[in-house]
This record gives sequence, C-alpha cells and structure tokens, in this order.
Amino acid sequence: MIRYPNGVEGQVLPKKAEKTNLKNAANRGMGLEADINNANAYYNEKEVALITKRPTPINIVKVDYTKGARITDAYFEHQSTTDYNGIYRGKYLDFEAKSTRSKTSFPLGNISVHQIAHLRRVLQQGGIAFFIICFSVIDEYYAIDARYVIDCFENAARKSITLETIKKVGCSIRQGFTPRLYYLEAVDQLYFK
Amino acid sequence: MIRYPNGVEGQVLPKKAEKTNLKNAANRGMGLEADINNANAYYNEKEVALITKRPTPINIVKVDYTKGARITDAYFEHQSTTDYNGIYRGKYLDFEAKSTRSKTSFPLGNISVHQIAHLRRVLQQGGIAFFIICFSVIDEYYAIDARYVIDCFENAARKSITLETIKKVGCSIRQGFTPRLYYLEAVDQLYFK
Repeated sequence: MIRYPNGVEGQVLPKKAEKTNLKNAANRGMGLEADINNANAYYNEKEVALITKRPTPINIVKVDYTKGARITDAYFEHQSTTDYNGIYRGKYLDFEAKSTRSKTSFPLGNISVHQIAHLRRVLQQGGIAFFIICFSVIDEYYAIDARYVIDCFENAARKSITLETIKKVGCSIRQGFTPRLYYLEAVDQLYFK
Repeated sequence: MIRYPNGVEGQVLPKKAEKTNLKNAANRGMGLEADINNANAYYNEKEVALITKRPTPINIVKVDYTKGARITDAYFEHQSTTDYNGIYRGKYLDFEAKSTRSKTSFPLGNISVHQIAHLRRVLQQGGIAFFIICFSVIDEYYAIDARYVIDCFENAARKSITLETIKKVGCSIRQGFTPRLYYLEAVDQLYFK
C-alpha cells in the first residue's frame, strides 16, 4: 500500500471539523495518519511531548531547473524506518501506526521486515517502541508493545494477532475531539506505571 | 538552499571510496549530509546509537496513476524540524548539520526560525539538541550545543558565531575514514562527561 504524505507536523483540523461537534462524522474520513498528526500537534502545543512524522521518502528521478527546481519525475519509496518518533517524559519514543478493516484480528503482513528491524534496534538502545493499531470498521484503537509484535512476527505460526489478544496485551486508546486520539495515555499505561 | 535527498538510512560508501585510502580525496566531494549518513550507518551497525535522517519533505502536486503512482509534478518543501534525530545512551538526540565556506565564522542566516523553535522544544522535553557545523574550506567540523546557538540567534547583535568562539564553546569532531565523522565522540565530550 502506498501512503501519500497528507499530513505534516503542526497540522490542524480543517475548518469544517472545527465547526461541528459530531466528532466521528467529522473525523472518521481523515484517516489514521491525520488523526495521529493531529494528536502530535496537540501534544506538542501543550508541551507534553515532541513527536513528529517522518516525511514519506521519495526517490527523485528528474528535476526541471528552468521552473525553479520543480520535480517532474519521482516515485514513492518504502520507509525503511517507522513513521513516527520523538521524545516523551525524557524517553525516546518510536512507533508505527497501522490500520486494518478486519473486525477480529490484525494481519502481520501489514508490517515490513525493515520496520521490525528498526524497532528491534530502538529496543536495543533502550527506547520505547510500539504499534498503534486501528480497527477501522469497529472504530477501535490500541497501542501494543513492539516486543510482542516482533515476537509474533518471527515465531508465531499464525500471521495475525487476534483482537482478543491485543485487548489483553495492549492498551485501548481513548478517542476524543481534540485530540482525536489520546494515545499517550495508553503509552503511560504501558510504560510509565 | 535546496538540498536533494542524496542519502538514506543504511547508506554505505560507494565502491570507489572503499577502494582508496586517500580518505580526503575520496570523500570530500560527498558533502556533509553524506558524511553524517555514513557515520549514522556505522554507529547503527555497531549498535552504538540509532540515528536517522528525516527524508526531505516534498509537496506532491500531481501523480500519474496510469504509470503505477509516478509523481509527475512536485516541489521541495522546507523541513520544519531538523534533519536528524534518534537515540544514544538512552537519550533522545536531535540535531541539524550546516556547512559554511567561511573560514572565520558561521553565519546564523543559515538556520531557519522553524528549526530554532523545534530545537527549543527538544530542550524543553529534556532531549539533547546540538548543531554540527562544517567549515568546508578549512575542512574542520564542530559540534555545538543548541542552547548557545539559540541564544546567539535571538540576542546577539552579530548575526554569526566566530570560529574562535565555536572552538571554545563547542567541540571539534575527529575525522576518519570509517566513519568519516566521529561526531558522537564530540557528543560524549559535551553531554556525557
């Protein structure tokens, strides 16, 4: 799946969403990435944390200098790291966010070998590494420690993690209006208790 | 100045450079960004640290889906953060690398207001924030704490920092072949003594 860079640091909700109180109706279409960017902008502004999205890497083939360095041919590359990292409570944080339409389990095929390798290195260095998993159809979000996911990725016979297991091992993420996802509450629950 | 994304995480030296021992001749042309990517790949492989370059953000105007999502119109955006972040000795690290052709001072006009704001937030959160400054003509490299640079950026009458001052306040970076820049030695000197 190719993800387009539809969110940047400091992004705010569009005007339309600000005007309505129907949070789900207004925001559901924005997608997981926009929701997390929105949460990061909120946490950043409140000085709770500093977490940024790495831009989507793009391989540039041709640049037209006659138009002031306009890119005329390029293609999307796979991120060799995760999408998000930053600092929270003085600790280095690194995570990947994934969405599934399944109502019962999260398929591990969504995760690349590079991302697993990256998160393993984060853990080696003493950082906090986790996944945010969105079950889009049932509108539920969870944070789950990367150690567990890495273990399943490499050892489990089943190539998915059931929602039931995620509920046990991970932590549910509270939803709201601003921010859409209080995902650092789940991080507190998992790592700072 | 527009920088093109000529380096990715895990990048290795080109074959040509591997074959020669004339380190300066072989590497000088590669530029500061490539040197730092090379150092990061080295530190990453040795499991000393995990530091990555954020990809250059690109604003996409048009994508041709008939060619398998080929980007046909786009332009470079300014990074609203710094170029590098990661984890070292369990601490969050964030820095920007700048090069100057001056032999006597580093002009602060090189640094954007966004980058200063970003580094201030890193410090607020208890992270390590610094600059790597390359004096390309005299082939000298320094690490200097972001606090000092932010202070100069906002308060100083002179809009540059003299090399003399950088030598006093910062720390010289040892150069080698692999990696080209032992910049974490300077970080040790500045923050872990």
